[in-house]
Amino acid sequence: MKHSSLPIPSDFAAPPSPAVLAGWLDADRQARPTRVAALRERMAREGIDALLLTSHADARFFAGICFGPNEEPTSGSSGWLLMSADALALLVDSRYIIQAQREAPDAEHIDYGSDVGAAIATWLHNHGARQLGLDAQEVRHAIWERITEAVPGVELRSIRGWGRALRAVKEVSEIERIAAACAVADRALAGILDQIRPGVTESALAWSLERAMREGGAEALAFDVAALAGGNAALPHGNPGTRELRAGEVILFDFGAQVAGYRSDMTRTLFVGEPSVEHAALYTAVHRGQAATIDLLRSAIEQGGPLPSGRACDVATRAAMAGSPHVYDHGLGHGIGLQTHESPSLSRGATDDALPSPTVFSVEPGIYVQDEIGIRIEDLVAVNTAAKSLTILTRFPAEPLIVG
Amino acid sequence: MKHSSLPIPSDFAAPPSPAVLAGWLDADRQARPTRVAALRERMAREGIDALLLTSHADARFFAGICFGPNEEPTSGSSGWLLMSADALALLVDSRYIIQAQREAPDAEHIDYGSDVGAAIATWLHNHGARQLGLDAQEVRHAIWERITEAVPGVELRSIRGWGRALRAVKEVSEIERIAAACAVADRALAGILDQIRPGVTESALAWSLERAMREGGAEALAFDVAALAGGNAALPHGNPGTRELRAGEVILFDFGAQVAGYRSDMTRTLFVGEPSVEHAALYTAVHRGQAATIDLLRSAIEQGGPLPSGRACDVATRAAMAGSPHVYDHGLGHGIGLQTHESPSLSRGATDDALPSPTVFSVEPGIYVQDEIGIRIEDLVAVNTAAKSLTILTRFPAEPLIVG
Repeated sequence: MKHSSLPIPSDFAAPPSPAVLAGWLDADRQARPTRVAALRERMAREGIDALLLTSHADARFFAGICFGPNEEPTSGSSGWLLMSADALALLVDSRYIIQAQREAPDAEHIDYGSDVGAAIATWLHNHGARQLGLDAQEVRHAIWERITEAVPGVELRSIRGWGRALRAVKEVSEIERIAAACAVADRALAGILDQIRPGVTESALAWSLERAMREGGAEALAFDVAALAGGNAALPHGNPGTRELRAGEVILFDFGAQVAGYRSDMTRTLFVGEPSVEHAALYTAVHRGQAATIDLLRSAIEQGGPLPSGRACDVATRAAMAGSPHVYDHGLGHGIGLQTHESPSLSRGATDDALPSPTVFSVEPGIYVQDEIGIRIEDLVAVNTAAKSLTILTRFPAEPLIVG
Repeated sequence: MKHSSLPIPSDFAAPPSPAVLAGWLDADRQARPTRVAALRERMAREGIDALLLTSHADARFFAGICFGPNEEPTSGSSGWLLMSADALALLVDSRYIIQAQREAPDAEHIDYGSDVGAAIATWLHNHGARQLGLDAQEVRHAIWERITEAVPGVELRSIRGWGRALRAVKEVSEIERIAAACAVADRALAGILDQIRPGVTESALAWSLERAMREGGAEALAFDVAALAGGNAALPHGNPGTRELRAGEVILFDFGAQVAGYRSDMTRTLFVGEPSVEHAALYTAVHRGQAATIDLLRSAIEQGGPLPSGRACDVATRAAMAGSPHVYDHGLGHGIGLQTHESPSLSRGATDDALPSPTVFSVEPGIYVQDEIGIRIEDLVAVNTAAKSLTILTRFPAEPLIVG
């Protein structure tokens, strides 16, 4: 195996300046009317005159209010949006009134008190709504029942992912923010490479990487850092523990940063000392699998055609890995933005629809040999058919690297 | 104002050793049959032959599976519990099977695939259930409907907080863990006092405090650190920002650690330089208000009687603060354990029932003058009427302190 020289933090972009951060907030402000108009167009098309959206990502995208990344469980119904053809209301409890005035000045603010179902019903009644679109997979049974009982004349129609579908197509300033989050993660990993050696624990490395991101421009993590050694890297879901690294095995890092609301996600599997011929070959197979999807995307873009489907990408990657044992059972990739997992989906179960454009998603095949080794390579790819561009936003080298 | 000497980290207990951590896991293992039996007793009493519990705290308490603190949004329905008089099942998707085998060996594991409603219905059918208790405020409408449709013979009855009610009464090893989390937080604050001075930002101090907890024995934070300067401390909900500290104002820290699954929660409001006479008087009023509840609890315990109600505590604290302007609108306190906010509640809206015993809760009155100052003092109190004991678990001094 070739010993590549290791990357260093200054190989990657520095965190954004305050001026750049302010510019992104301004871009959001200017884009919000267009975003809301797109949602209203769909409402008109599907014959729904009122809409309830309940995710913090939608609250930020359509109304501007920015919740903390860990705030969903404690915020109650704060951040829920009600929309009609000419009204936009943000439900908040008293804790969030001042923040809503500051960040979401264009929405009406409704303090829903102790009965959010009744507050929604009153708003529907006042706006003469006859149908309400809301997601039965997200809204709690008691609230659904409360609305039904309070405004029996309004038909409740379950809709799924309307906000998410619009957020799948990314604006320029959104892609810039995802790229900035990628650079923070790239620099952080480059900065801790010298700490990776036999004897150090998974949890110590996970904390070092978190600290490097948080002190290097991340306002938060995109998700808890996974740092998994040797056979642990084969676990479908592993938390870093007191397991110590040993020479001749891998360390797998799956991690991401959040910058100005937008997230990154990257996996790198590093060899701690020289790998065996077999392990090196597994790495090559995963890398080849990832390249197959990227090549497929690139050639579709060059030909000016539509992008392949998420399912076609999965097929291409699996074909390129044919013959390797223990090929991944999980999805090949997922969209990313305000949330770590967004539309579109790249997987065996994805639709045959062309991927949207412009958009950003992960490509992350893996090979997992139980109790022995796990290898996954995950990068974020930005595609834009109109601009004929494909950019790998994660810049940390994906070639096999030997550390320790 | 008296200049007290500042606390130092070694004033507080060191983090638990691996042997102590292992002992707590063992205590959980031994206590689980008793916990489950208590739940079954209530089922029998209320005529419900099957129960669905959907919180990660209940999954850990009754079955032993330990999810990460930020895992609720990404875990799907993994961690949901189904219980009958003689069966206990843990719903998990394929990612969590290995973890469930390791941590929850006494429960049956059901891989629910893509349709959790159908998996629940099948289990109910196989166990001949006629009533299912579940929480309509927690369970999503689509899942409620799916179960109703799949097993029309089973009556769905909404129940609220049965797991939470049992978890309000704390075992010895639970209180030890909360105390250990408090000590981690105490040490962390003591360790960053020398960084508090005019010019430093709220967010820099929040990060220093987080880092001191994470490097000082916390496996996670209990919640994001609040570090709010001057007038920001009066905000009902504030995120630490780029605001710089100024001499003559306060810095309010609201923060907590997690140790072996259990959480702490403490607020300290420190003066950055000598306070005005007015501000010092406000601090004294808040401190007096907190003491009123602690005195009320102590005297009930000494007299061997039941504890006061959560509402009576709030009345006592407000009476002791009578005459002060801008007395708190929020609750006086809350139970704490596996979750940051648990039963019992201490507030104007709480019931007249005596507080349970043994239990742990916060006592956190405040005074908030808009755009000028906020002062809150929050401590965790462990009470045990049988043992005639009251212990303040948060040991960082609550007397007014001048820093910077």
